[in-house]
Amino acid sequence: MSESAADATTTPGSPVPDTDPAYREAVVDLLGAIAYGEISAFERLAEDAKLAPTIADKLDLATMASGEIAKVHPLHERIRAFGRDPFEAMAPFREPIEEFHGHTAPSDWYEGLVKAYVGDGLANDFYREIAAYLDPDTRDLVISAMEEGYHAEFVVDRVRAGIAEDPRLGGRLALWGRRLMGEALTQAQRVAADRDALSALLAGGVDRPGLDLAALGRMFTRLTERHTVRMGELGLDP
Amino acid sequence: MSESAADATTTPGSPVPDTDPAYREAVVDLLGAIAYGEISAFERLAEDAKLAPTIADKLDLATMASGEIAKVHPLHERIRAFGRDPFEAMAPFREPIEEFHGHTAPSDWYEGLVKAYVGDGLANDFYREIAAYLDPDTRDLVISAMEEGYHAEFVVDRVRAGIAEDPRLGGRLALWGRRLMGEALTQAQRVAADRDALSALLAGGVDRPGLDLAALGRMFTRLTERHTVRMGELGLDP
Repeated sequence: MSESAADATTTPGSPVPDTDPAYREAVVDLLGAIAYGEISAFERLAEDAKLAPTIADKLDLATMASGEIAKVHPLHERIRAFGRDPFEAMAPFREPIEEFHGHTAPSDWYEGLVKAYVGDGLANDFYREIAAYLDPDTRDLVISAMEEGYHAEFVVDRVRAGIAEDPRLGGRLALWGRRLMGEALTQAQRVAADRDALSALLAGGVDRPGLDLAALGRMFTRLTERHTVRMGELGLDP
Repeated sequence: MSESAADATTTPGSPVPDTDPAYREAVVDLLGAIAYGEISAFERLAEDAKLAPTIADKLDLATMASGEIAKVHPLHERIRAFGRDPFEAMAPFREPIEEFHGHTAPSDWYEGLVKAYVGDGLANDFYREIAAYLDPDTRDLVISAMEEGYHAEFVVDRVRAGIAEDPRLGGRLALWGRRLMGEALTQAQRVAADRDALSALLAGGVDRPGLDLAALGRMFTRLTERHTVRMGELGLDP
């Protein structure tokens, strides 16, 4: 167990803050959503790895998939520190996350790459925004779960090379990126409607500052701006 | 780069021994076979994870799968230290390993668990036997790639619980374990026939002791004995 917040990223079991039950419920929701998202991302990336044109590509995607699983265990440990069962905490997010994946099944290798890049990036940006409203130990853990590593570069290289070889691919993938954004928003709205504690986290509490509608609007603007940047990095019109 | 053999497990790029080309070829073959085996095991475990009855089981199998991928990168680095391309080094083993998996596709969750346990164990025992004939740096690397972690226990628990619930399962899985052993031997013989340098490694060289036929027989006996022990651990007749 950690005695300070400084090493929280390596000690997810460090003491939890003694705050209102609503906050704790929201944090457990958030950690459950991220953890299930990682497990689900593993499954999808492992599935997409089958489409890889070379063994080297397959290994890169498998390495990305493995990276997702490595993040699950500390999230689960933190949920346990909050006195909850991680599998129960993940349960409410299974349906919206699986539905997102069901509606965005890549039809080829490139769609899988763009989804990994854009989808992961969007989820990471959103969790980083939310992290600002968390206690320091949980915040450090959430942020450490978002580190991307070298794989982003691999995706950018492959997608750009694919478009250079067949320029029509760029148009198709640009549409695909927009669809991913739309589906992500649909499921996010659904979660916000279903999970009161999680939504309330953003609105603040007695002892915590929250977001008013204008701030929520600015957060949304930042998320779409970063999505646009990512599409540009891949060589795609946003 | 390492300057001593002591920390070889963390520095797979440490200097390679200045021995005969046949030895180097054999080591590159061996590392290539193990590395491709890990990638292939990742794919199969990720596929089997879909059959998991609970999210907890799915996560355990996904964690096993991720563990395989973590082992690939140091093996590749060691192949590069021997001056060879890891993807070329893996290529000759793709067909026999895929054929093994093609002939042993699990038809349910339990067959997948037994395959992960028995197949991994058998491969690990074989590589540990071969490790005795390697230079110290490569030997340490091969042995560190064989560490099993906590997952063995998880498989034993699940399979024993399954048999307790439905005793007929034990008979079916015992047959399955025998089939896995038979298929593994078939593919191993094929590799031995195709890869002269690798077979010659076991037979020794000018400056290296090898195995005579009697010693090879004893090695085979040890492998089957350990297979029998593993089957027993799972509660299965060997």
